[in-house]
Amino acid sequence: MIDITLPDGSVKQFEKNATPMDVAKSISEGFARNVISASFNGTTVETVTPLTTDGSLVLYTWNNDEGKTAFWHSSAHVLAQAIEELYSGAKLTIGPAIENGFYYDVDFGDHVVSEKDFKAIETKMIEIARGKHEFKMRSATKAEALSLYSDNEFKTELIENLEDGTITFCDHATFTDLCRGGHIPNTGIIKAVKILSVAGAYWRGNENNPQLTRVYGISFPKQKELTAHLELLEEAKKRDHRKLGKELELFTFSRKVGQGLPLWLPKGAALRERLENFLKAAQKKAGYEMVVTPHIGQKELYVTSGHYAKYGEDSFQPIHTPKEDEEFLLKPMNCPHHCEIYNSAQWSYKDLPKRYAEFGTVYRYEQSGELHGLTRVRGFTQDDAHLFCTPDQLDEEFKNVIDLVLYVFGSLGFENFTAQVSLRDPDNLEKYIGSNENWEKAEKAILNAAIDKGLNYVVETGEAAFYGPKLDFMVKDALGRRWQLGTIQVDYTLPERFDLTYKGSDNELHRPIMIHRAPFGSMERFIAILLEHTAGNFPLWLMPTQAVILSISEKYEKYSEKVLNLLENHEIRALVDHRNETIGKKIRESEMQKHPYMIIIGEQEEKENKITVRKHGGEDLGMITIERFSEIIKEEVSKTLKSF
Amino acid sequence: MIDITLPDGSVKQFEKNATPMDVAKSISEGFARNVISASFNGTTVETVTPLTTDGSLVLYTWNNDEGKTAFWHSSAHVLAQAIEELYSGAKLTIGPAIENGFYYDVDFGDHVVSEKDFKAIETKMIEIARGKHEFKMRSATKAEALSLYSDNEFKTELIENLEDGTITFCDHATFTDLCRGGHIPNTGIIKAVKILSVAGAYWRGNENNPQLTRVYGISFPKQKELTAHLELLEEAKKRDHRKLGKELELFTFSRKVGQGLPLWLPKGAALRERLENFLKAAQKKAGYEMVVTPHIGQKELYVTSGHYAKYGEDSFQPIHTPKEDEEFLLKPMNCPHHCEIYNSAQWSYKDLPKRYAEFGTVYRYEQSGELHGLTRVRGFTQDDAHLFCTPDQLDEEFKNVIDLVLYVFGSLGFENFTAQVSLRDPDNLEKYIGSNENWEKAEKAILNAAIDKGLNYVVETGEAAFYGPKLDFMVKDALGRRWQLGTIQVDYTLPERFDLTYKGSDNELHRPIMIHRAPFGSMERFIAILLEHTAGNFPLWLMPTQAVILSISEKYEKYSEKVLNLLENHEIRALVDHRNETIGKKIRESEMQKHPYMIIIGEQEEKENKITVRKHGGEDLGMITIERFSEIIKEEVSKTLKSF
Repeated sequence: MIDITLPDGSVKQFEKNATPMDVAKSISEGFARNVISASFNGTTVETVTPLTTDGSLVLYTWNNDEGKTAFWHSSAHVLAQAIEELYSGAKLTIGPAIENGFYYDVDFGDHVVSEKDFKAIETKMIEIARGKHEFKMRSATKAEALSLYSDNEFKTELIENLEDGTITFCDHATFTDLCRGGHIPNTGIIKAVKILSVAGAYWRGNENNPQLTRVYGISFPKQKELTAHLELLEEAKKRDHRKLGKELELFTFSRKVGQGLPLWLPKGAALRERLENFLKAAQKKAGYEMVVTPHIGQKELYVTSGHYAKYGEDSFQPIHTPKEDEEFLLKPMNCPHHCEIYNSAQWSYKDLPKRYAEFGTVYRYEQSGELHGLTRVRGFTQDDAHLFCTPDQLDEEFKNVIDLVLYVFGSLGFENFTAQVSLRDPDNLEKYIGSNENWEKAEKAILNAAIDKGLNYVVETGEAAFYGPKLDFMVKDALGRRWQLGTIQVDYTLPERFDLTYKGSDNELHRPIMIHRAPFGSMERFIAILLEHTAGNFPLWLMPTQAVILSISEKYEKYSEKVLNLLENHEIRALVDHRNETIGKKIRESEMQKHPYMIIIGEQEEKENKITVRKHGGEDLGMITIERFSEIIKEEVSKTLKSF
Repeated sequence: MIDITLPDGSVKQFEKNATPMDVAKSISEGFARNVISASFNGTTVETVTPLTTDGSLVLYTWNNDEGKTAFWHSSAHVLAQAIEELYSGAKLTIGPAIENGFYYDVDFGDHVVSEKDFKAIETKMIEIARGKHEFKMRSATKAEALSLYSDNEFKTELIENLEDGTITFCDHATFTDLCRGGHIPNTGIIKAVKILSVAGAYWRGNENNPQLTRVYGISFPKQKELTAHLELLEEAKKRDHRKLGKELELFTFSRKVGQGLPLWLPKGAALRERLENFLKAAQKKAGYEMVVTPHIGQKELYVTSGHYAKYGEDSFQPIHTPKEDEEFLLKPMNCPHHCEIYNSAQWSYKDLPKRYAEFGTVYRYEQSGELHGLTRVRGFTQDDAHLFCTPDQLDEEFKNVIDLVLYVFGSLGFENFTAQVSLRDPDNLEKYIGSNENWEKAEKAILNAAIDKGLNYVVETGEAAFYGPKLDFMVKDALGRRWQLGTIQVDYTLPERFDLTYKGSDNELHRPIMIHRAPFGSMERFIAILLEHTAGNFPLWLMPTQAVILSISEKYEKYSEKVLNLLENHEIRALVDHRNETIGKKIRESEMQKHPYMIIIGEQEEKENKITVRKHGGEDLGMITIERFSEIIKEEVSKTLKSF
């Protein structure tokens, strides 16, 4: 008999060689039908692997990330079989599960796979799936393995690097693949399949190697899940911030300026400024002070901070001066500069906390292949701030930062989020800097703050940085995707490295604690997420243009200008579409530009000194006075934008 | 007989060998007494040089820059004679006139010259001056010259580089110096002398050469002019922006961040922001659009713009990336980035003018010895904008830019300025880029604008850049010093180099004209000038803190906070001095911080719900209501800050 410990802590006895599926069935037949993969003592096993020792077992369903991984890994086998059957001579290489689906890299020889092939592959995959073939793992010797792939130089290369005893295959139906394991019970669970795209990929990611075709797919246990996923992909495509950024004329890139370096067009720069002003106003109320620091610093600065040792060689390289022996670096972070500002005076405990904020543009090298719109760039502006406080102040400061982050999320329509609290690994206390007493204080401060603020949080033990514990927010957007926003990080290292001090009430010098925080993270990434979250329909207070004035004909230009002036007096951001185009075309283009309100001006409006208002999306508010319109705007703004 | 043409165009006949002084006397004896130097056909001559041909003669007095140069050049001779007589063995090297006075570089051997020596040198110089010795030029052969300086390796080196026929000496009293000429008639005109300082200086500015002592002095024709000058120097010292910047906690420098890279402290950052917001508001009304661009660009960008060829080797060197073959440069200018923004769409003539503005931080390498506070730095933020317009729009755009610059000057208390219009050299038209027609249009546009706006302007023919004509403002500050601010530059080159186009009404592509402009120039330099101009007493609208609340004792803290809130409701920027210090100390420190208004709070004030107000400088406004105080503030603000 063996003792099997389940995730809820309960221990059950089973006969030796019982399988995970046997354990699942012992819980309930209904549950077992949903179990698709398992891990034993932290290692992935098959649901049919005989268990031979005591240990901890976790059973996964489609609702677990681990279950999805097994599902998609198994689907990749089915894809490979389908390709082998459809394209004779195609050479398989590797094919893993990924975040959303799976892929397989294939050498198709002379055949060029395109969208035209997708239907056939999908049909073949479903045909195979319906066979309800079980996945069966088996060991092989290197000689056996090599003989199987005598005509496949890719698999041969993979096998050459393996040792006898570690080589395993997975068989299902008539198909066999080199494989480490982790499958669903049988192919029959795969009910819906979609081949999404093909792309070029070098063998082992090296551009000197042959180019392969990467076939991307996704699969689901139910057809309706596939349908929902495809709708989501369609919606995500429409909301792609690169597409919206172009349509809304927010930003552009220039080959000459360089990749990953966005140029903010007037409407985008106005959007940024509005976001900055919003945060500035809240920060001012929260007692922050703005500072301005340069975008470069001597190499020595980053040697002191430790950033050079950690990132120096993989970053933008040092800037030399023509005549003097000086080396500067583009700043990858603002913290060293803010430490030097703190260090420009001797503070007393009465002066603390100091809260220095800066919209600081930093530069970090990313390989060109990694760049993506505004989410992965080489230069970005952090809504950065560093708080320097005494240990006694940490509790309150941390709570205040959470308040600020929640205010930001609330004002921008992010309502679905959880907090992750990253603490020390209690088994490896020696790897953390700072006194045990301070760590305990800081961890307690963060946990207290999370509870006090009613956050939905999870604790990640051992996930703290070596220099301090932190709290991250994981925000779910309108398409259900998760983004990490609003990290709050406690830091004991930089105060040490920069020898920061304050004079305590005991007249002795003490080290302040530093908190790093950035509710947006970076203006670039945040605006990208906000664009995709809102599809460009920002909260009204943030829209660069809140209303556009469309005149029926040029005859009403003068009255249009008058309306514009009146709206400006009401602090409504508006513009006039002066063009000599039909009102229909003007409305269509205005809808495309996501203008929240359209004001239509014609004879009747001028006569009655009123405006006809139409909301984005089509709702007609009829002919109203400007004062009434101003009230409508103010009401809508106040729904999302509260005062901090 | 020879024909002498005078600056007013009149021509007078004189006997051959008449001197400039003879000509002066022919005008009037009174005028001649004031003439101290002259130029003939554009070349400096002595006032006693015999004129042997027809030509144009200009006579200078102390009121001309040329007169001052001759005066200070001659004074350097007197300084050299004094040093030779006082310090036997001292070796003279070179000693020119400079912007304010003159210096002489001397090898004093073992003697260390210090402030203790100044009085003796001044006394000796005045003693020599009183001898009314005439300055007499004479030629010498190289052999004669070398024999005179057999024990002076510096003069020997200078002479070695001269040719026979170009070597001239100047004699006065018993003293002789190697000299090119340009003196006042005699030493007697020098009535007042001050030795200002000594400093180390390498022979010929090369640090591998011997170190010399540079003796700085200044001299005047009247004692009271020296007194006034010394008072000005004293005042300038008090107003030194580096000193005020420290006292007012505006900015700091850090050795670790690097020299010439200012860190803006909270009060300085707030000051910058206020200035930026002021200009932003005016620019918005003038139809500018803000953009945001990165602080680096690919080297190719600056090769295209021509900046790399011109400045590349003397600038911060290229930034390499770790893995890819890319080279970036810190941006020395914003214009290439703005050209790329213009280029992101195809504009029609109906879309122009485009006016892109950015507070763009640029980086330019300066040798460490050249750095000075905020006026010579390595990183600074330009209040930059680039206007792209059709040739027909240039006239109006130029006028509008002048309006904006004048608005900036007016709002900041710069009332004393002249404009310099720099045009082409009509004799060298081939060195300018752009069609003759466009140049004529542009030059006419600038001149028309200057006349139309009633500017006090001078035309500098031949001073235009090769890429376009320009207008500079020369602003006089409160100490009478002149600063170049608010350049407006027309540019034909960059539109060409970046292939900028717009579609004209003829449906053909045309080149737009570009205007560069920056009313402040740079935030750093402008704030330095403004600090020295106002001694830190900025116009009230700009002061970071307009009023400080000083409570008589801690008992009134609550009422002080209430007053603070009320002031904030009235949009008055105030802060409370909470400290437990005497009211006298609080007032003294508040004066030092230049706070314009001090609000004193005690028992009586709380009882009557009023405040006692004292102006910076001491004026007592008595006990008044907050509403009355708010009116006083608004009145004062509106005196300098008009709406644009």
